[in-house]
Amino acid sequence: MKKVVILKGNIVHTPEPKGFQCVKNGYLVAVDNEIQGIYQELPKEYGGQPVTDWGDALIMPGMYDMHVHAPQYVYRGLGLDMQLMDWLNTYAFPTEARFKDPEYAKVYYRAFAQALKKNGTARAVVFSTIHWETTELLMDILEEEKVGGFAGKINMDTLSPDFLCEDTEQSIKDTRHWLERNINKRKLVKPAVTPRFIPTCTAEVLKGVGELAKEFGVPVHSHISEDIGEMEIVRGRYPEYDNDGAVYDHFGLLTDHTVMAHFIYPNEQELKLVRDRGVTIAHCPQSNGNVAAGIPPIRRMLEMGIKVGLGSDIAGGYSPCLFRAMSEAVYLSKLRWLQSGKEDDFLTIPEAFYLGTKGGGQFFGKLGSFEAGNELDALVIDDGSLSVELDELTLEQRMERVIHLADDRNIIGRYVAGEKA
Amino acid sequence: MKKVVILKGNIVHTPEPKGFQCVKNGYLVAVDNEIQGIYQELPKEYGGQPVTDWGDALIMPGMYDMHVHAPQYVYRGLGLDMQLMDWLNTYAFPTEARFKDPEYAKVYYRAFAQALKKNGTARAVVFSTIHWETTELLMDILEEEKVGGFAGKINMDTLSPDFLCEDTEQSIKDTRHWLERNINKRKLVKPAVTPRFIPTCTAEVLKGVGELAKEFGVPVHSHISEDIGEMEIVRGRYPEYDNDGAVYDHFGLLTDHTVMAHFIYPNEQELKLVRDRGVTIAHCPQSNGNVAAGIPPIRRMLEMGIKVGLGSDIAGGYSPCLFRAMSEAVYLSKLRWLQSGKEDDFLTIPEAFYLGTKGGGQFFGKLGSFEAGNELDALVIDDGSLSVELDELTLEQRMERVIHLADDRNIIGRYVAGEKA
Repeated sequence: MKKVVILKGNIVHTPEPKGFQCVKNGYLVAVDNEIQGIYQELPKEYGGQPVTDWGDALIMPGMYDMHVHAPQYVYRGLGLDMQLMDWLNTYAFPTEARFKDPEYAKVYYRAFAQALKKNGTARAVVFSTIHWETTELLMDILEEEKVGGFAGKINMDTLSPDFLCEDTEQSIKDTRHWLERNINKRKLVKPAVTPRFIPTCTAEVLKGVGELAKEFGVPVHSHISEDIGEMEIVRGRYPEYDNDGAVYDHFGLLTDHTVMAHFIYPNEQELKLVRDRGVTIAHCPQSNGNVAAGIPPIRRMLEMGIKVGLGSDIAGGYSPCLFRAMSEAVYLSKLRWLQSGKEDDFLTIPEAFYLGTKGGGQFFGKLGSFEAGNELDALVIDDGSLSVELDELTLEQRMERVIHLADDRNIIGRYVAGEKA
Repeated sequence: MKKVVILKGNIVHTPEPKGFQCVKNGYLVAVDNEIQGIYQELPKEYGGQPVTDWGDALIMPGMYDMHVHAPQYVYRGLGLDMQLMDWLNTYAFPTEARFKDPEYAKVYYRAFAQALKKNGTARAVVFSTIHWETTELLMDILEEEKVGGFAGKINMDTLSPDFLCEDTEQSIKDTRHWLERNINKRKLVKPAVTPRFIPTCTAEVLKGVGELAKEFGVPVHSHISEDIGEMEIVRGRYPEYDNDGAVYDHFGLLTDHTVMAHFIYPNEQELKLVRDRGVTIAHCPQSNGNVAAGIPPIRRMLEMGIKVGLGSDIAGGYSPCLFRAMSEAVYLSKLRWLQSGKEDDFLTIPEAFYLGTKGGGQFFGKLGSFEAGNELDALVIDDGSLSVELDELTLEQRMERVIHLADDRNIIGRYVAGEKA
């Protein structure tokens, strides 16, 4: 028998970045996790089916976290007044080393997965650590908590602290072993190859994981052109290439199933390359400021047709909530607008909403908006606490206020892959 | 009989910006709203007095919102992807006009005051509207909700929409009438003269309110050097002065009981003038980005010895919570650090905490830290929800995490002027 899901409420989504599409008191219908449409009146054929009536609540697509470090949840909100290298050495590296221990990992990966779930993330692209065993554990926990997406064992075999530096051959071997064990094991959570970033990976490892990505047909997740210091290291090591993207491309790591975080200092060739390869960029505005990386040219990327989603980048970002990322994407774009002499137009609210929903969602499948034929990930938002009884707001205004002001308390329902989750 | 308040818990404050002072499981004692000290063991003389034991919670000073527009609470979180003038014309001015109506004002001023209270603000410096009657209402409501500070009827008699533009003589007359009625009426909430900003005030009004401030001995609250466009208007109107500060000073509006918001583009003379006059600057990082104003040179102000506090600037900012302002002050300072070629050092967490507590608190009296002789405003923070059981954090780290991650749920106790509030 077919599984029919009918949600009634105020339906809001962005099939295109240019504006919200809203249906007040509408019906959203999915059959076997395939959206049939949004209706003002329920079509007769669904007459006998149960309707979940969410009253005056807002029904929106799930949110998609395109870049997040699961082990760094341990120290979120700590050390953000340090310089980047101090922070990595004080917090990131020692903490990641502890994830060799499954007992330690179990506690924090559970807390991490629950934080994402509670804050409305439907699916995520997740860094773990170099340890394949606890990466497997992370994948199990994400699946249990119904946070879908891709998780990746990290590769790092150079320029890393001793206690986190892998042997090159072993790194590739472990990755293959982990891919074999996990490639088809779960419904919602799949593996992605995850070289940390170019500075901590030898050419052998980049080549090796590039080949594995192709062989297993899995996505690639890493960082690109985030920081001047990082980029200088890459230029020094690969003088034949003038940008990070070209290096990744050389190793077969730029495909239409690649997500790269940050892209703050792309050059022209790199922008075109990333667009032509169909790479998705994970924009992480909270992290961009916290680690003093800079303000990426998001408007330019959008104008060029580059795919862009949003990331929390825990723990460069401290908040797992992608409403914050939407709000801060607009904030940061206003500072860039100012600094560019008002050349680079700032993002609108619907654009930021699009980035956090469909912009990232389409990386996981037909997701992120409620067009017919898409899968159903959805959130139900009770925004009653955000307004005062005299307010008479449009659905667009209500969603705008949610983006700036909502937190986990306002999320009262969550659907992933067509099921209540 | 003397009123003795003894709070037990983990006491954290910043008498100086350079670092937290913490006492684990300590006693904070106040007698008749005068802090006696912080003790590891309770002195014998207080042996018979009741102790409020807050267990493992953090006890910190109250927070001080140095710049906030009460009527703009109506549309917080709306229109922040507009340009400034569009936003003012769409939201700010039409909304402010409605505050002529006491029935309307009553609803939103109550919601505003309760939002400040719930989010840990002990005292605030508040813009109302041009309407003295509902400004009085706002002051009553703030007093009832135990949010202390200064509220001000706005003056605006030029370059304003017709429906908000006062007659010059009437503006001064209304201000005098309102001052007479409210100067000594309440315990916690007092009046401050509040010319909106130089562009919307004639020289007559600036002169008039300057004289009233002196005559009644009340503070001054306005905006200074926020925006290039605003500054051009001021330069055009007062070509004999090369900065906003000099104009305010000419009218007697820069004193050691003046608070000025923003100060994003000060010049050298203006920095010195503001310092020499003892003016307090209200730094509003959320608003600075939202309205695309820019990043003020806070490090430079601190190095020069200028007094700086934090403001939410509702509704240029959308959040009334000053933890957000602390977090975002660090964030914004990191972007400035980057843009200055790493010349302007970014703010540390204790510095940001100092700005949000003592930096602003000292404007209201001996407030913002727990030094002996100060008055007692305090917050009690349960940060249990922010950590996982395995975390073993120092009190400094716990407070750092609170700054980035806490919300109103974490505020479980509040004291204003020595009383539970």
